Amino acid sequence: MGTAFCTPLLDRGHEVRLVGTHLDGAYIDMLRATGIHPGLEYPLPPGATFHQIEEVPNALDGAQMLVIGVSSAGISWAARTLAGLVPPGLPLILITKGIEWRGTTFELLPDLLVEGIPETVRPTLHPVAVTGPCVAGELIRRRETCVIFSGRSPSAVRTWRDAASTPYYHVWASADLAACQASAALKNAFAVAVGFASGVVAPSAGEKSGSSELQGVGAHNYESAVFAESIVEMAQLVELVGGAPSAVVGLAGAGDLLVTTHARSIRLGRLLGLGRSLDEALTEMAGVTLEGVATIGAFANAFRTLDASGRTQPEDFPLMRHLIAVANGEPVRVPFNRFFGGTSADVALATGSR
Amino acid sequence: MGTAFCTPLLDRGHEVRLVGTHLDGAYIDMLRATGIHPGLEYPLPPGATFHQIEEVPNALDGAQMLVIGVSSAGISWAARTLAGLVPPGLPLILITKGIEWRGTTFELLPDLLVEGIPETVRPTLHPVAVTGPCVAGELIRRRETCVIFSGRSPSAVRTWRDAASTPYYHVWASADLAACQASAALKNAFAVAVGFASGVVAPSAGEKSGSSELQGVGAHNYESAVFAESIVEMAQLVELVGGAPSAVVGLAGAGDLLVTTHARSIRLGRLLGLGRSLDEALTEMAGVTLEGVATIGAFANAFRTLDASGRTQPEDFPLMRHLIAVANGEPVRVPFNRFFGGTSADVALATGSR
Repeated sequence: MGTAFCTPLLDRGHEVRLVGTHLDGAYIDMLRATGIHPGLEYPLPPGATFHQIEEVPNALDGAQMLVIGVSSAGISWAARTLAGLVPPGLPLILITKGIEWRGTTFELLPDLLVEGIPETVRPTLHPVAVTGPCVAGELIRRRETCVIFSGRSPSAVRTWRDAASTPYYHVWASADLAACQASAALKNAFAVAVGFASGVVAPSAGEKSGSSELQGVGAHNYESAVFAESIVEMAQLVELVGGAPSAVVGLAGAGDLLVTTHARSIRLGRLLGLGRSLDEALTEMAGVTLEGVATIGAFANAFRTLDASGRTQPEDFPLMRHLIAVANGEPVRVPFNRFFGGTSADVALATGSR
Repeated sequence: MGTAFCTPLLDRGHEVRLVGTHLDGAYIDMLRATGIHPGLEYPLPPGATFHQIEEVPNALDGAQMLVIGVSSAGISWAARTLAGLVPPGLPLILITKGIEWRGTTFELLPDLLVEGIPETVRPTLHPVAVTGPCVAGELIRRRETCVIFSGRSPSAVRTWRDAASTPYYHVWASADLAACQASAALKNAFAVAVGFASGVVAPSAGEKSGSSELQGVGAHNYESAVFAESIVEMAQLVELVGGAPSAVVGLAGAGDLLVTTHARSIRLGRLLGLGRSLDEALTEMAGVTLEGVATIGAFANAFRTLDASGRTQPEDFPLMRHLIAVANGEPVRVPFNRFFGGTSADVALATGSR
């Protein structure tokens, strides 16, 4: 994603210095040699130089803006690495998304990053974050993309919007950093639940037995009901984190969850739906970044505290709580009747003709 | 869908008399011979009898409930056919969804149906309607499905919920008939727009030239942005029709639009995105029921009146207005910058490296 984000910046005429983390050495070598990231298979426009992690100080020397594109797990590493190198007032944007539970409150990743910067510089930084549906392989190909830049400083948000908007990269501005970060983190978790459908239905659809009798009939009803409850719970959980729930009616919620149904979290959900444990599924998907698992863990920790204090009730958020239960080893058995406020009538069959 | 809806009713122990329209003669013959609808390829449970249209009076004789499952275009035909046959107080549910513009106001299909029933009976009828994601082939296979039954009479809604709920067919109740009918109609229209993406991107993805260079990279950013704006406009248009906009955060909006992205409206959108005119696309899809086209037409008519009176503004609903323009022959060119309140900055590229 960091590489793809260079395309609108380069198209806007910026000079870009792309620095890999200590895990990206081979990618940087390849970008230097061919100009192409092997995961994207498409060239960057001219104007970028590529740097190994050791060159961070040189790359930052004289830089007028800084983009952070590490995974959410790497945010404290990024903070440590950049700590002494960020000059006061440097415009900062994070492609990295997420929230953490810190015992009594949620913390947003942009705040965690800035926390690691020395006190003398910290107050001059106004981090901005990118949210919304954005597949890297499409962005680098300049396929139309709509995103939100959010941050508490409107002028910082405008600076980035003015720097990165292109006719194919449409940018909206938001001051609701909490809503944007929370929904970005939540969509990765709920995408796992949306993925349950194809796994749960696969055996009855004859997939395991090799029968093709039911071929072409999926579990889109199941999937869509889970998607709908996901949006409902995203709104409630965004509010819990301190954002405006209405943010989920748009790019940050519905749009971002839809795009994620084409991504790797869905595959994790499918494996869980097929009956794998989380450990087994993660082993099968080794090497794939799965941000949703961290989000599920953050809410597991948060509910423990919030339930105890009465701020949340055990009957709230049935889908997120089911994700937590599945992560802890329970089989997938989506509690549909508890969805949408739990008003569905659960009626026993009057006949045995099942 | 009418056939699939029999499954929960039969599983609840009801005797079901399934009557085809004058267009369904061959299906009824086949159901009689094999118990299987050729579009569903799955047997109904025992307990159903199958009837040609001429047998409507016999089928209704002594019936305790009535399900209407015609297409929206057939609703006045259904009203005429049933006019003299519906006894006072007969519980009535419509699988048929939609709204029409009647010059000055929107009319909901359940109301149009009841309008056709003689005055002596009309006040005793309290129609209920089904909304929410429901693919027929999945329902008949008893794959988990969540829907909303809505109607202005809470007891009528409860009657149907109690009659049709099963452990796989989860039913929520709503008194907001307008919101449920409007969003059910709107999702078919907006699904056409969601379908534009794959058509628009196909030529650049090498599909026409046969190149597979970009295989696997789609237009999910485009699609997701259109999906997100669809949910936003659905909320606003539901309100215009007289329903609560919050209904779209759930089964009726987000859930139903998601399931529809797996249906035929998407194919229509794709053809339009590829550059076909509406007539050409409809010819290619001859024989397929496309409810979305009627909804687009209803809003085209409505905006003409509502814009003139100032109740709506020409800059409102950019995606629905683009659907209307495309239906009238304009090429697909989604106005992304007018989405989400139109606050995206449209910035010219500083370089020519496109």
